[in-house]
Parts: sequence; structure tokens; C-alpha cells
Amino acid sequence: MANNESVDWQFSGSDEGKAASEASLSTYTSKLFALCDPQGKPILPPRGETAETSHTAERAVVKAVLFGTGNAYAPSIGLPAAKRAVADYLNRDLPKKLSPDDVFMTVGCKQAIELAVDTLAKPNANILLPKPGYPSNLIRSIFKHLEVRNYEFLREKKYEIDLDSVRAAADENTFAIFIINPHNPNGNTYSEAHLKQLAVLARELGIMVVSDEVFRWSVFGSNPFVPMGKFSSIVPVVTLGSISKGWSVPGWRTGWIALHDLDGVFKSKNVLAAIKQFLDLNAKPPTVIQAAIPTILEKTGKEFFHRRQMFLKDKTDLAYYKLKSIPSLTCYMKPEACTFFWTELKLSSFVDIEDDEDFCEKLATEENLVLFLLIIQE
Amino acid sequence: MANNESVDWQFSGSDEGKAASEASLSTYTSKLFALCDPQGKPILPPRGETAETSHTAERAVVKAVLFGTGNAYAPSIGLPAAKRAVADYLNRDLPKKLSPDDVFMTVGCKQAIELAVDTLAKPNANILLPKPGYPSNLIRSIFKHLEVRNYEFLREKKYEIDLDSVRAAADENTFAIFIINPHNPNGNTYSEAHLKQLAVLARELGIMVVSDEVFRWSVFGSNPFVPMGKFSSIVPVVTLGSISKGWSVPGWRTGWIALHDLDGVFKSKNVLAAIKQFLDLNAKPPTVIQAAIPTILEKTGKEFFHRRQMFLKDKTDLAYYKLKSIPSLTCYMKPEACTFFWTELKLSSFVDIEDDEDFCEKLATEENLVLFLLIIQE
Repeated sequence: MANNESVDWQFSGSDEGKAASEASLSTYTSKLFALCDPQGKPILPPRGETAETSHTAERAVVKAVLFGTGNAYAPSIGLPAAKRAVADYLNRDLPKKLSPDDVFMTVGCKQAIELAVDTLAKPNANILLPKPGYPSNLIRSIFKHLEVRNYEFLREKKYEIDLDSVRAAADENTFAIFIINPHNPNGNTYSEAHLKQLAVLARELGIMVVSDEVFRWSVFGSNPFVPMGKFSSIVPVVTLGSISKGWSVPGWRTGWIALHDLDGVFKSKNVLAAIKQFLDLNAKPPTVIQAAIPTILEKTGKEFFHRRQMFLKDKTDLAYYKLKSIPSLTCYMKPEACTFFWTELKLSSFVDIEDDEDFCEKLATEENLVLFLLIIQE
Repeated sequence: MANNESVDWQFSGSDEGKAASEASLSTYTSKLFALCDPQGKPILPPRGETAETSHTAERAVVKAVLFGTGNAYAPSIGLPAAKRAVADYLNRDLPKKLSPDDVFMTVGCKQAIELAVDTLAKPNANILLPKPGYPSNLIRSIFKHLEVRNYEFLREKKYEIDLDSVRAAADENTFAIFIINPHNPNGNTYSEAHLKQLAVLARELGIMVVSDEVFRWSVFGSNPFVPMGKFSSIVPVVTLGSISKGWSVPGWRTGWIALHDLDGVFKSKNVLAAIKQFLDLNAKPPTVIQAAIPTILEKTGKEFFHRRQMFLKDKTDLAYYKLKSIPSLTCYMKPEACTFFWTELKLSSFVDIEDDEDFCEKLATEENLVLFLLIIQE
């Protein structure tokens, strides 16, 4: 058949995702890795080096695979046993208990962020995002044409949220403040008193608090993690989590979103229905990992998390010590949590560096070193 | 804190997904299962009864878990080893070979459908969908406000596509025809000659062919499966697949989309870029399953597929025989593939049944029997 007459094909690809995709961290880091010379010095950081994986988690998934307990389509809201296990786990620290019906399973914490953004986005609405902050929620907001407003941090108060900047950014079209706790990339953990202040302010502003708590198992400083759900008698709270970071299983794509309701507002404001609709229509986490969630959450020993914390602390101490001796880079606070270093670059120390992106690209080209620069919307 | 002053909360859930979610098969079957009486007769079909799971697939995932080969974030387009394995597998039957770059890994075949719809949807565009057909693409189209036009089948020609109905439905805003091969729920497999006719017609209409081939391993009749990719020298073809059905692992959520390009049109028409952007922004399949894909595709023995086909054939023979003795239900063709029975209900035989939905609801209530009615847009 294949004749050579030219055909005017009627299809073309959408550019709906273009702007958001360009802002994505993986697009950027892929570009940096591509600048490295595979024949040169070892490329740093080595791809794939991680902390020890939880053997409890591994065994739980192996069991689910071999017993076939995950070989079925799970309900779109999540496998009942997994929802119950997440609720039970989170309830350990909560005065107002969650029911399994308040928990929905997602494809990693990333889909939980998508869920929170997509189900709440509306024309003219805006959300408050941290600056700096992990870019997933920013990217999703660009994708959904949602106005993003930034709040800031008080460096002198160990990167507490600048509540005045929150108040200044919010207006009658703001529907939520997204926080990350422990905060990535600042590397701090919010105190109970600070979170309560935030809850009171959010109530005053009439907005919900969405708290990304995926790094709650990556705390190695002296401040303990306090879940935002503790303040759901003040303000409606949504928390996001996953096993990726805490159990060192980033490719397992299983997370959750939990609704810490206040007086039934999530139901009356249609949030509950919107979440269920979103989950009906979008990708689901693997049942075979969901089936392992009860064992993973209930049976992983304290020693595992302790070893993980020591591993992260050692790496942090080393990096902080090394950074100190580089005059043009300043890290104002040694991280107490998470896996990033928030570092200031003094551009005036250089003669041929245009900006932070240029700096990172030259580092990749010349030194085979990839810095995970966070792209901040100015 | 929690005082009782009333707060005018500024957020509310989006109803963006409402219409599409209501059309979803899982919403409907959940409703039917809820009508059954757990204390009554055994509920049929028993949830979770499936054909034998592939032990090769199980062992491959167990190995990936224990060796940690899937404990990392994969590139958003898919793990290179998985992309290569899918290309190699599909190439067994293709004259024009795929490269690994033509394959993208997705969260099951369902996300591959979402990908095909989302990346091509544009204002005023329309797509051609089979009637009857599996509802995922219909649902996604409703979600993306895409106009759906139906094409039909010729019962007298063993449910071949009615090419006249394709021609009648298409216009200058049509961008693609979606086919399902083997066809679910008709249960037939298209012949090579018929697929070639379709390719020639699609070329004439200037539209691409998107072929959902997830049931290619569920063929138990005498007509062999022919992949649509064979005709990519006539028309641009996109094929969709996953391991869920063929290996009986429906909860593993790992599928793919393959672009069988013609003269670089997918690149020049921005389809390639749109797919990459979509994958950057949306959920990804578990790396831990992707890592097992090469072994699953290469090492699963013929005996496994043979046993699976015999299992499905036995069930089909039994159901067809039983259906024959029910006067108000007619199945015009014994299925040769897939796992559905396309059956006509003669409403005139009943005095108190309003329509097909009413029939299914009464069956669930009175007999604890759930029929997976396919919701067709009239």
C-alpha cells in the first residue's frame, strides 16, 4: 500500500502540559545529567544510591506477590486493608481519630499532591505555596492554571513560616495553604506551637491547611515531628504521605491522602465527592503494594528508622562540614530533616557565572557534579 | 482553641470529574454489588476469582524486590530496560521495527488510554469510538470535553467494524479512531485483511488508529491475533497494552503505549512531545514492576498461555451453553477472545422491567448476581 502521496494528517499533540512540564524538576535534572561526561570523573551524586531498604517492606511485598493477595483491581479509593492501616498508623499521634473512610490511597505522594490541587482548583482561585518549596505542587498548579502565591520563611527563627507573609498573600479567593513538614528543602521541623499558630491563622483566613508529611520519617535533629492533623479541631486539615521516603522504596508508588475533617466541612463543601471522582478517573497505586501496607506500617521496627536517621545524619554532617570551607556557598542552617541542603550562592564571587542555573550547568559540564537546584517562581 | 464561632470556609471541591465519574464502570458495578445480600445466596461472580497467575511474573517481581532493582524513581517515560523489552516483544510480529524510544511505560493500559486521549484532545476535536466498547476511553473523553462519535459493527460478518459507519461519522475535526482488538465486549479478533482495510480508510480520512491490544493474550478461538502495528506503513498507529490481563495480574498497574510512526509524523505533529509532557506531569507505574518486565515478557512459557486460554475457553463454553437455554437473552456469537459476553436482552419478554439497568439491578437484588453491564452512550 504505502504509496508516497502526501497525507494531511488531521491530528496533532496538545501543548496543554508544556509550561508545567518545563518547570518540572525531573526535566531539569535530566538536562544536567546529560551534560555530564560518562568517560570523565565519577558522576555525582551516583544515581540510585539510597539508604538501606526496609526488609520488612520487601518481605511484605514478596508475600503479597506469592500469595496473590494483590492480584486484583482494588477499589479506586484504595484497598480497604491499606486504608485502615494508614488510619491506624496516623491515629497513633492524633487526638481526633481518623476512620479508614478518611484515607484514600494514591500513586505515591505525588498523586496525593495532584489530587489536592485538582479537586480544589477553580477559576480565579489561588493557593499559598512555600518559597522555597518542593516543586510538585507548583507544577501541578501551573498545569491547572491556578494562581500561585508564595509565603516566606524567617531565617533567624530557624525557618519558621513567616505568618505575616501568609496573611499578606491571602485574599478572599485563597482556598488553601500548602505546607511541607518536615520542610523540604529548608530541612527543619515545625514545632507544635508554630503549627498551632498557623492553624489559628488559617481559620481566621477561612482556608484549609494541606500538609505534605512525606519526610516525617527523615528527621534526625532534636525537634520531633508533629503532625498537622493534631490541629483539625481548629482548621480543616489534609495530610499527604507515602512509604517512598521513610522505607527507602521510591519506586513503589504508593501513598495516601488523609482528610482530618472539622464539623463535616469536607463533605458539605463537596471535597469528599471531588476526591472520589478524581480517583475514579485517574491512575491507581499497585494493589500488590497496597496489600503489603498493613505489614509495612505495623511491623517495621524502630531500629530500622534509627539506622536510617543515622545514615542521613552522617551524610548531612559531612556535607555541611565540606560546604563550610567553600566561600561562595552558604548553608545557614544544618538540616535536621529531609535530604536537601538549602544553600545560598554568592554570584558576586564569580566572574563568568550568569545565574544559579548557569552555575549548575557549568558544575555538571566541568565537574560531573549534579546539583538538584529547586526552580522557584519569582 | 476549637471555639464554636462559624467560619465561612473559602474552599470547595471541584465538580470537574462528576459527569465522567458517573459514567465509570466501577461506579456502576460498586452500586450493583451493594445491592446484593451478603447473607443470601453466594454473590456471583465471586470477587477476585481469576485465571492462574504467571509464576514467571511472580518470581520476576520477587527478584526485583529482593535485589532492589526497582527501588528508585524511574524516568517519567519509563525504565529503559522495560521500554526495550516491550519494543523487542512487539517487534516479534512487526515488519517495521519499534525502537525502545517509541515505547512509554504507563500505569496499566488505562493510563495509556488517558495518555492517548489527553495528548490529542483539542477544542472542537472529535474521536471515533466503538459502540459497544469498553468505557475507559469514553469516560476519559467526557472528562476532557471531547466529542465522541460512534462507529458500529456488522453482526452478520462476525462483528467486523462497519467501515461505512466509520466513514459516515468522520469529518475534518476527527483525529483518531480507537479500536479494541481483540474486541471487548464483542469477543472477536480482527483478521489481517480487515485491519488493512481499516488502515487504508483511516489514511484516506487523515486520522490515526489507536489500537487497545490488552486482550491479545486472551484469544481462544481459531482466528489469530494480528497487531495493528503491522500497518504502520499505511497509517500512523498507536498501540496500547499491559501485563494485567495476559499474565492475570490486574493489580500490578504496568502497561505501555507504543508509537508506530509513519514518516516521522508523530514528531512533526507534536504528539511525541505531548506524550513526554503528560508523563512528566502524571502518575508513574511502579519501578519495582517495570524492573521485572524484561523477564516477564521474555521468559513466560507457551504452556502458561495455553493453560490460560483453555481456562477461558472452558468458562466461555459453559456460559454460552447455559445462556442458550434462557429465552430472553441472546448471545449472537460465542466469544473467541476476551472475558465478556455481549448479550441482547429482549425487554418484551418481561412485564416489570423498565430497561437494561433495571434488569441488572433486580438481578443483583433478587439473585445476588452481578452483570457487568457496559454503559453505552446513546
